[in-house]
Amino acid sequence: MWWGLEIQVKEKAHILISAAVRARASQLEGPGFNSHQGPGLSVWSLHVLLVSVCEWVFPEQLQQLLDLDLRDTGESEEALLRRCSDVIKYSVKTGHPRFFNQLYAGMEPYSTVGSFITEAIKTSLYTYEVAPVFTLVEQAVLKKMIEVIGWEDGDGTFNPGGSMSNMYALNLARYRHSPDIKENGLFGVKRQVIFTSQDAHYSLSKGAAFLGIGTKNICTVPTDERGRMVPSALEELILKSAEPIMVNATAGTTVIGAFDPIDQIADVCEKYGLWLHVDACWGGAVLLSERHKHLVKGIDRADSVAWNPHKMLMACLQCSGFLVRDKTHLLQRCHSARASYLFQQDKFYDVSFDCGDKSIQCSRKPDAFKIWLLWKALGTSQLEQRVDRALPAKPMKFFLLFFFFCLFQPEYANVCFWYIPPSLRSLPDGPELWEKIHKVAPVIKERMMKKGNMMLGYQMYQDKANFFRMVIINPDVGTDDLHFVLEETHRLGKDL
Amino acid sequence: MWWGLEIQVKEKAHILISAAVRARASQLEGPGFNSHQGPGLSVWSLHVLLVSVCEWVFPEQLQQLLDLDLRDTGESEEALLRRCSDVIKYSVKTGHPRFFNQLYAGMEPYSTVGSFITEAIKTSLYTYEVAPVFTLVEQAVLKKMIEVIGWEDGDGTFNPGGSMSNMYALNLARYRHSPDIKENGLFGVKRQVIFTSQDAHYSLSKGAAFLGIGTKNICTVPTDERGRMVPSALEELILKSAEPIMVNATAGTTVIGAFDPIDQIADVCEKYGLWLHVDACWGGAVLLSERHKHLVKGIDRADSVAWNPHKMLMACLQCSGFLVRDKTHLLQRCHSARASYLFQQDKFYDVSFDCGDKSIQCSRKPDAFKIWLLWKALGTSQLEQRVDRALPAKPMKFFLLFFFFCLFQPEYANVCFWYIPPSLRSLPDGPELWEKIHKVAPVIKERMMKKGNMMLGYQMYQDKANFFRMVIINPDVGTDDLHFVLEETHRLGKDL
Repeated sequence: MWWGLEIQVKEKAHILISAAVRARASQLEGPGFNSHQGPGLSVWSLHVLLVSVCEWVFPEQLQQLLDLDLRDTGESEEALLRRCSDVIKYSVKTGHPRFFNQLYAGMEPYSTVGSFITEAIKTSLYTYEVAPVFTLVEQAVLKKMIEVIGWEDGDGTFNPGGSMSNMYALNLARYRHSPDIKENGLFGVKRQVIFTSQDAHYSLSKGAAFLGIGTKNICTVPTDERGRMVPSALEELILKSAEPIMVNATAGTTVIGAFDPIDQIADVCEKYGLWLHVDACWGGAVLLSERHKHLVKGIDRADSVAWNPHKMLMACLQCSGFLVRDKTHLLQRCHSARASYLFQQDKFYDVSFDCGDKSIQCSRKPDAFKIWLLWKALGTSQLEQRVDRALPAKPMKFFLLFFFFCLFQPEYANVCFWYIPPSLRSLPDGPELWEKIHKVAPVIKERMMKKGNMMLGYQMYQDKANFFRMVIINPDVGTDDLHFVLEETHRLGKDL
Repeated sequence: MWWGLEIQVKEKAHILISAAVRARASQLEGPGFNSHQGPGLSVWSLHVLLVSVCEWVFPEQLQQLLDLDLRDTGESEEALLRRCSDVIKYSVKTGHPRFFNQLYAGMEPYSTVGSFITEAIKTSLYTYEVAPVFTLVEQAVLKKMIEVIGWEDGDGTFNPGGSMSNMYALNLARYRHSPDIKENGLFGVKRQVIFTSQDAHYSLSKGAAFLGIGTKNICTVPTDERGRMVPSALEELILKSAEPIMVNATAGTTVIGAFDPIDQIADVCEKYGLWLHVDACWGGAVLLSERHKHLVKGIDRADSVAWNPHKMLMACLQCSGFLVRDKTHLLQRCHSARASYLFQQDKFYDVSFDCGDKSIQCSRKPDAFKIWLLWKALGTSQLEQRVDRALPAKPMKFFLLFFFFCLFQPEYANVCFWYIPPSLRSLPDGPELWEKIHKVAPVIKERMMKKGNMMLGYQMYQDKANFFRMVIINPDVGTDDLHFVLEETHRLGKDL
């Protein structure tokens, strides 16, 4: 049996692969003093607290430190191992329970293994013959996602990120509207317009530029006070626009985690015959939760959905699904170029398994495996528990404290708050106060990065001054970590 | 010291990570009985010959075998380990010295380690703060590639594949020509035309469709008898076209490995003020070889170059560089959307290190590390030796044998040949003979896949009947492997 062979590894590779495994091990250490973990983890916990989230070094210094130049002659194993060690040391520990900076966080051993296996197997998804297993794995994951969305059937592809998925939606919507654009281009065509909320991800805008639609033809629809698209405003804008093509509804906006009212938007799309795309890259995970899936009510009426398991579900980067309700091979027809050296029609197996022509890429990574293995290990039920654990209630208890002001009661895992230093607390409300508050977050962030024991992001939102956005999804985050963030933020900012 | 910490790995992760490492180990076994390897490898060699290149199973059976469905409850560690084992078993061993099917092959332990580390660190390239090391690593690799191309300075980005790089070139060329298209789109603009040879990669066509240019506006320039673009034909077509924008020269075509005459094409581009992009995804590696770099003479006159170290240089998938000669932040200006939540301007470090807005993606993998570590280990000199070893001379001795007819004396690592079964050898030349030859390769391929001891691809080229294209780049390929391909092809096809 193949698996039973006693497999040896060349010595040098063995040493270096151990380094890589140790890198992952440093992420695997898990929680600090978290309530949902047993007490046996104390030594463990000590380790993780000794490892900083980041070890800040300015770019110019780090360049020196890492000796990045590529030279004529190779380096010794020892030197390489030292370099790998430094690479790991100075990288941000995104798996650390006090990393809250991005829409991904935490680490998931099963998915890491999935990643390592896809890297080790080194193949590309285009023909069944060169990637038999991963072709079927991708199909299986897409099928499950389609089922969870609530469609009877459908199609899809994994992409290198949600931005690409949103661009696929733009292209499919345009293709369905006027299939001849694929051949003739947009020259001389009536100006086409795409609708999305003002809080939508910037990939819609990037996509419009890239696809020749133009950023001006992304029509931004106003949102309500909680960042959700206003359907009546959408309808008004459609009536005034040149050639409406597609509406993008966002399920989980990037900054505040708002969910557009998909059902009402679907009514508008139906009325005007527009393609409805749901950018659920961030919020798609609620589909797995009985308690929270009302947030995406109506998603089954969408024509396409983007959903990234590498965010809330913690698959490794990148793992981005793009799903289409169409059953007429729209994805294939829209993107195919029928390269004769790859997609021969005289093969001895069913060539409908060759999925490469659904994609605009040629070589494409088997990313679906990263969520497949994780899903196999945890089952839908445990994934659901994670989503439920990550969402509201819990963080709010801690953030509605003295000195901290939440911008919104969160719908999702984004917690947005201002820290108000004591010196500003007695000032009267007004532009002057907010100008001062605006400068607080960048200073705290600088001190935080240099100290390196936690990491969260800040930004503005509309006319609101700089605030922190803390994204809480890592299942290893405990109440102690949340307390720590509050206390540490106060320590770092109380003199401002 | 952080690296010195005794790091433990959770038990379950440890077992599974071992599985992943074993997966790589199966690829690491290296050569069969290759002349350039010492005799100490015999046990080793036995192992690799016991492992098939592929274990063919039809899709429907494999679906059953792997039990791909995702369910409510998770599975046991043992079951998962068995699944991983099956995933590895039924995947194609692209690192096997008898895998010649794609433009990538072989395995490179250093790059694998680079892959594992990037997976383990789990971060994305957009801000320095979240990916300090990889930001600088990417810069260092781009700088080296720019130096090797022969530019004084430049810019670039790594992309998820060469198709994407070619699309970046289209978008930059268009942006330089009419920057306002980014905002306004192509509506009402005069029809723009892109020139490329008829042998160019299909991503140009896919890109034209995706970017709203239209596949019809890709003007294909005739090639000479060796698959190289004819510059005089290019000039004639430019004079007749609507609004010429860009010329794509291919350095290493996909099927036959031809190099367009870049210098002469550059003359034409200069004369008409057109953007010159060189798709050197496949052939870029010759830049490292004193002996072979004449093939890309004039590449330093290009405006942009696509070059994939995951092909000839054997970095892990994906590792695709896109380089631009411009020094005025064209890449940034063309693609930026200035997302305020990510690219704050009030940061405490030099935000020019935040590279995210050069890309159309949001999250992007630190792929450059896969070639950086490899380059550090081998140095330019060993990379050069590999390129030199892979190119012409050697394979030709074996392929100009009885029963085999090469289509062309290869310029690069693509060896294209027909196998003529004995029964056809006495037939007169003519359409009837070629019709029969056309059917030979698919049958041999079927038998080859089912036997599983080697793998090479076949296709047509222009009016030429189906032939085999064998891509020889793996440094572990020895003369025995080449002999084996010939003998085995004869064994599989002699009765046809």
